[in-house]
Amino acid sequence: MQLSGTLSQLIEALRCLPGIGPKSAQRIAFHLLERDREGGSQLGQSLTKAMQVIGHCQTCRTFCEEPECSLCQNIKRQDSRLLCVVESPTDVLAIEQTGQYTGLYFVLMGHLSPLDGIGPNEIGLDVLERRLSDGNIDEVILATNPTVEGEATAHFISELCQKYDVLASRIAHGMPVGGELDLVDGMTLMHAFSGRKAIT
Amino acid sequence: MQLSGTLSQLIEALRCLPGIGPKSAQRIAFHLLERDREGGSQLGQSLTKAMQVIGHCQTCRTFCEEPECSLCQNIKRQDSRLLCVVESPTDVLAIEQTGQYTGLYFVLMGHLSPLDGIGPNEIGLDVLERRLSDGNIDEVILATNPTVEGEATAHFISELCQKYDVLASRIAHGMPVGGELDLVDGMTLMHAFSGRKAIT
Repeated sequence: MQLSGTLSQLIEALRCLPGIGPKSAQRIAFHLLERDREGGSQLGQSLTKAMQVIGHCQTCRTFCEEPECSLCQNIKRQDSRLLCVVESPTDVLAIEQTGQYTGLYFVLMGHLSPLDGIGPNEIGLDVLERRLSDGNIDEVILATNPTVEGEATAHFISELCQKYDVLASRIAHGMPVGGELDLVDGMTLMHAFSGRKAIT
Repeated sequence: MQLSGTLSQLIEALRCLPGIGPKSAQRIAFHLLERDREGGSQLGQSLTKAMQVIGHCQTCRTFCEEPECSLCQNIKRQDSRLLCVVESPTDVLAIEQTGQYTGLYFVLMGHLSPLDGIGPNEIGLDVLERRLSDGNIDEVILATNPTVEGEATAHFISELCQKYDVLASRIAHGMPVGGELDLVDGMTLMHAFSGRKAIT
């Protein structure tokens, strides 16, 4: 006995989700068919629509439906000569939630990872280079994640900035606010010490 | 700044998948948009089609696209007076792979779980009762999982069988073949001892 064609197809298609193997795919398919057909249909439509409609902002590369995202279109942003480089659209959300940053963004959609075939062009550094060469940017704030790949990407971009005489800065590393000294890893603690400031 | 409407909708829709919270939904959406748009479209279409097309076999309740599944339609099944009751369509697959059982199946699509609002009718025991009352079944093999709920369900169905004078049997519990005695739990070991057979 075989599962029906449509069901096998669904199980196979579910495996495109990250971290979902054959057993999980089967469980998800059965769960949706048995307990949540409405949710399943809704998800099917959302996926089909999103894959067609959502593209990248031509200026900052974040996901958006128009050619340019609402942030880049907003001419009222005060520090339009300040550019913050982040790895993902969620980072933009996190920074915007603080309400303190009023510059623009550039979203890499990943980080340099030569072993996975992700080079400068895959994370849009050609687009970034074009923006730097325009001369409209005074400072690039590198807010990639403090991981090995994130640091390497930041370093690469800082060299790009030098080429166009644009100031590059890296966000500060140190103790998170509310964190406890004995629970923090050694690297963070080292950064916190080396980046200490005189109390004035 | 907000995520675009279509993207928020997709993230919300992904949360219907079992075990997927808001953060995972976001990660999945970004993964599909960045790395696997083709897979995402494919999944969207498969979901939409499956939710519309796949129904239940009117005889055994398993998932199928026609009114009756291929197993129930197969008049060549030798022991058509033997009915094996299982919890899920995957159990049918597992039993069919052994190639030893030639009777019919009845798929409960779950087990009794009154606290979750799953009573006899939710697992199709009304359909099963109709089949028992037809007098075409000689024996019901209860192959629900050896869990508390599975045992309770098996017990409930065995009482239903008594009512219609149909023999009910439970699959054997004991040591799995190739298992090691010291790695097996106490309940299984107890079953293995109480179900021992004389060597003849």
